[in-house]
This record gives sequence, C-alpha cells and structure tokens, in this order.
Amino acid sequence: MRVHNFSAGPATMPLEVLERARSEATDWRGSGMSVMEMSHRSTEFVGIAAEAEARMRSLLGVPDDYAVLFLQGGATGQFAGVPLNLTAPGASAAYVNTGSWSAKAVSEARKYVDVRVIADEKHSNYATVPAEGSLEVPTGAAYLHYTLNETIGGVEFPYVPDAGDVPVVTDASSTILSRPLDVSRFGVVYAGAQKNLGPSGLVVVIVRRDLLGRARQDVPGILDWTAMAAADSMLNTPPTLAWYLVGLVLEWVEEQGGLTAMEERNRAKAELLYGAIDRSDFYSNPVEPSARSWMNVPFLVPDPALEKPFVAAASRAGLSGLAGHRSVGGMRASIYNAMPLEGVQALVDFMTDFEKQNG
Amino acid sequence: MRVHNFSAGPATMPLEVLERARSEATDWRGSGMSVMEMSHRSTEFVGIAAEAEARMRSLLGVPDDYAVLFLQGGATGQFAGVPLNLTAPGASAAYVNTGSWSAKAVSEARKYVDVRVIADEKHSNYATVPAEGSLEVPTGAAYLHYTLNETIGGVEFPYVPDAGDVPVVTDASSTILSRPLDVSRFGVVYAGAQKNLGPSGLVVVIVRRDLLGRARQDVPGILDWTAMAAADSMLNTPPTLAWYLVGLVLEWVEEQGGLTAMEERNRAKAELLYGAIDRSDFYSNPVEPSARSWMNVPFLVPDPALEKPFVAAASRAGLSGLAGHRSVGGMRASIYNAMPLEGVQALVDFMTDFEKQNG
Repeated sequence: MRVHNFSAGPATMPLEVLERARSEATDWRGSGMSVMEMSHRSTEFVGIAAEAEARMRSLLGVPDDYAVLFLQGGATGQFAGVPLNLTAPGASAAYVNTGSWSAKAVSEARKYVDVRVIADEKHSNYATVPAEGSLEVPTGAAYLHYTLNETIGGVEFPYVPDAGDVPVVTDASSTILSRPLDVSRFGVVYAGAQKNLGPSGLVVVIVRRDLLGRARQDVPGILDWTAMAAADSMLNTPPTLAWYLVGLVLEWVEEQGGLTAMEERNRAKAELLYGAIDRSDFYSNPVEPSARSWMNVPFLVPDPALEKPFVAAASRAGLSGLAGHRSVGGMRASIYNAMPLEGVQALVDFMTDFEKQNG
Repeated sequence: MRVHNFSAGPATMPLEVLERARSEATDWRGSGMSVMEMSHRSTEFVGIAAEAEARMRSLLGVPDDYAVLFLQGGATGQFAGVPLNLTAPGASAAYVNTGSWSAKAVSEARKYVDVRVIADEKHSNYATVPAEGSLEVPTGAAYLHYTLNETIGGVEFPYVPDAGDVPVVTDASSTILSRPLDVSRFGVVYAGAQKNLGPSGLVVVIVRRDLLGRARQDVPGILDWTAMAAADSMLNTPPTLAWYLVGLVLEWVEEQGGLTAMEERNRAKAELLYGAIDRSDFYSNPVEPSARSWMNVPFLVPDPALEKPFVAAASRAGLSGLAGHRSVGGMRASIYNAMPLEGVQALVDFMTDFEKQNG
C-alpha cells in the first residue's frame, strides 16, 4: 500500500516512473543488463543521458547558449561550485538571505569570495522576499545569488530579480519544473534532483556558456563546470542510475503536458491547501501570501503540544513526512509535482478532522 | 535474457541484488514508499544507512578508530579530497604512479600540494608495481598515495607499502571487497562504488580518526571528511538510493561467505582466465604475473584488426563490455565479485573458439 508522502526531499516520485524502472530493473530494453550496470561510455547509456538532457532543455526551454550539466554533490556542492567557477580570489558577490538555504549558500561561499548580503529577510522573520525592484546589486559583484524557493521556510520568489549586467544565479532545487521558468534571465540555475527531478545524488547545473572558462585553477574537477561541459558531464563516472531516473521523471512531466500543465496542477494543489489553512482559525501559515511556496507549505497548530499527535495520527492515516524541519518544528507538507491533487485533498480532509477533534 | 557483462564500471551487479531492489521498488518493507522517496532523516533510511556501514565494517574488519563515510563525487572527487583534508597549503605528499588512475590522482593533487612522484612505472610500460621495500617515502611527506588496482592497466599491488609514520592512502575502487584487506595498515582507503560495491554516484572513504581535523578552511563541504564524519555523512542529502543498493550488495557478499569466500572465487576466476591467456599463443597479457589484477584483465590478440571482430562476436554471444579502455585499446575483461565463474568460463570458451577461427 503506497502512502501519500509529503517529505521535503528525497520526496515522492510518480508511481508510473517507479513501475517503469521496476520493469527495466534487470534488463533495460533487451540490453541484457540494468541501467546501473551499463558503462557510462556505452551507446545505450550515452543515449539515455542525451535524451534526458534534451528533455530538460525542451521542457524548460533552455536556450542553446546554455550548457546543461548533470553532476554529483547536490546543491550544497554548488554552494562552493558557484564562487569557484565564477570568481577569482578576492572577488565579491551579492547574496540575498531569505532563510535556511540561502544562509547555507552564504556560509559556504564565504570560504571563497567576499560575500555581500544585500538583503536579509531577518526583519520579517523570513516570511517573505524582498520587494520587486528593491535589490541594489553592487556593480563590482561577480554575480547575484538567491534561493528561488526556501524548502524549510516555504518562501518562494514570485519574480526574477533584475541585476543589470550582473549574472543572476539561483538555487532552484525545490521548485524547478513546478512551473515555467525563463532561463534566459539567469546566468546559472542549479537544482538538486531529490525534489522534482528524481532521487538524490544528482544536481543539474544550467549555465550560460559565456560564464564558462572562469573557473579557478584549484577548483576540484568534480565541480569544474568548464571541464564538465567539455566532457558532456563525464569527466568522471556520472551517477548513471540517478541520471536515468531523472530522464524517466522528465518523460513523465512531458506526458502530463509539460510545465504549463504542471503549473495548473500545482496552483490547484497550493490553493486547496493554503485555502484550507486560511479558512481555519486552528491552522496558520506565517508566510506573506505573495511569497508563498507552491511546493513547501509549513503550517502551525495553536498548541505546539499537538504537533506530535498530528504527525502520528496523519502517519496512521497514510499521510507521511509531515513533521516540520528539525530546525523550525511545526508541520510542513511538500507537494511536489509527483504529489497528486488527491493526496492534498486527503491531507486537507485529515486536517479538518483533526481540528474537529482538537480545536 | 541477461548477458555476461565484463564492463569496468559501472559494472555487473549480483542478479539477486537487482531482484531484491525490484521487489522493493514501490514499497520498501511496508513503508508505503520506495527507498529513493524516503527522507534521509527518516528512521527507515537512517536504519538502512547504519546497517550498510555496519556491514562494511564487519566485512572489511574496519577498526573502531576509523570513520566510514558514504560520499558523492566518486574517487575523482577524493583525488582532491585527499590533499584538501590531509594537508595545509605548501605541504608535500608522495605519490606512486602505476598507470592511468594514479596519474589522474597526481594531476588533481597538484592543484593543492607539492606532489613528489617517488616511483613511476613508465620504464616497465606500467606493467608492474614497484618491488616491495623499494619505495623511499620522504619523511616530510604528509602522506603516501598509491592506486591499489589500476582498472585500465590491470595492475594490482600484491602488498601494502610500508611508509613508516607517514599515513598510507589508497584508491581501492576496483578491488575493494574482492579479498581481505588489512585496513589498519592504512590512513585512508577510498573506493568509488561502481565496481564491487554498487551503482556509480557513491564513494566510500575509510579514514583513521586521528587524521580528521586537518582539513583546509576552504575545502568544499561535500569533500570535508571531518564535517561529514560529525554528521554521519549527512552534512547534505546523501545519495540514498546508491547507499541502499550498496547495502544490498554488502548483504550479498556476506551471504556468499564474506571476503575469504570472495577471495577463493576471485582467485579461481583469475586463474581460469589468465591460465587460458598464458596457454595460448594467440592471446597475451602484458602484466608481470605477480602484479596481475584479479579484477581487470586486459588482453591482446596478435593483430589489432581482430579486436573489433572479437568484441562484436563476443557481444553476439552474450559477452558484453570487452573492449579495452579507449585510451589503450585491446580487450579487457573486468571480473568483479558479481561475475560468476560460469561467466568467465563462457568467455574462455568463446576465446578458444575465436582463436580456432582466427588463429
């Protein structure tokens, strides 16, 4: 019996993808082996890899002058990769702090670059993003970095910041593919796979090609975008099984109707859940409505003592992964692409019952 | 129909492991989800991870004063990780060059440390390893690095070098778990998973704990052994699916009888294949017998024009992945733990037939 899995990542996958992978688990299309047993240099795997990249390009509308890399080390690896690839020692870069993940990006970047935090949402208790047009990016900054969606705080940018000639870099881990994104507005978009793309262990880096060739001499090879782009992401053995599974997820997104269809589904799911929270005097979500994440919905009950009973009862009802992040407590429902509307409806029904019994 | 897959890595997996993973593909033991969908912080996954580590410790006899890390980025990531974790800028380290992979380790280490290549097997055309007792390790070296098994050249160290008080570091990617290894002789043993451990996308680092705490300030977090050891390899989201599959492989090795049983099987497989090559005037292996790899067996035919027909005919006979590495040509059979004796016998039978028709 499958549960509805609201984990923030690794996260629920489309059942069709799991079933497809299962059907190919010991013999991929007559090759006599599973994908994870194939040489990454084999015709078969090179085809699987290229097809996944082509689907990513087509779904997101990635312009031709961008490289699409499939790397290891997650978004955390790219917290170092971004400054190591885009700056020389002594350079400065602008960062926006909207919560836990941007703070981690800042902390890692400080190892390599003079970080200028040009906006920090501490004053709002990280419940919103800076107003559009309010960011002032220093002209000397090598890039502007922001976190498109804060997985823990449930805050999402409803706009793409304008930084003039300064390249905009974003961590899109928990929102990529949830709706259309104008990649041409960015210098770099990177995203760990374990939310909307597939299993953990793979990170996609989409980088405008004119930003290649700037890497530091001492960037580790596995984080070297320029070398990886030249080697089709195979400077070393890539995470082949994860790459294949991402390809299956991309195919599934395509079959659902692409990103405009995902946008409709995700809007409906978010409206259903936020609507139920807002109509209730029992549940609350602290995020400013215009900056609410469509993917990660944190919510509170009036008495923190009810949190554990909520999570436990939900789990018994087949609703899993609803505890808030250990750093903030409360509850959180992650409703990524693979979470169907029925899953959100089941959660809302459960919340209504729980409120009746405990409100 | 499964083929016999002689790929050097990613490589053949035990069929039992693939079948087990398949049976748990949409619902791991009643959890209602696949392992790749589980939060890495969930009780279930933390249990899977701990069990894999315990099995690794037990099978290899890892002493308690060693940390066992499950990281991303492959052995290539550790080519940078080793100097970044063990040295300060300006330090020197001793390297042994026995072929392609040690040369790559040297090249990456040069970004961070003064590399002293204390032995280079160029004079033997990389057909052997330095004689036991011949290595002179400079006392100022931070560590001695060598490649336990050269996957491309098919050369394996039959002994562990003695470096006195200097920690010995080895890349054991293509030989780990193929036979017992005295971990206590090493400062660090690391191994990419995609040969004897599981799918690509995971690297195991076994490090003596007194060597932790020496990392450079600017080591990327994903390569920081000290931080990773403190976080049970979960400083960031680990490659959970690969970790689980490695655990299943370790369980399989245990069921086969552990490393002494693997040693017997692998010795028998290597003797069968090298014996067939040595008895033939048609096939040849260039490696000095005492340094022959049990895992990767390169071999040549008298006329290079016969290589493509050999590989193609073998493939039609259900023997896959026999082309030599693109950098050296020839043929290569990788006969890792998961390759059964019958696979090697089928290869030897094919080789005999091919020789009859072309010799």
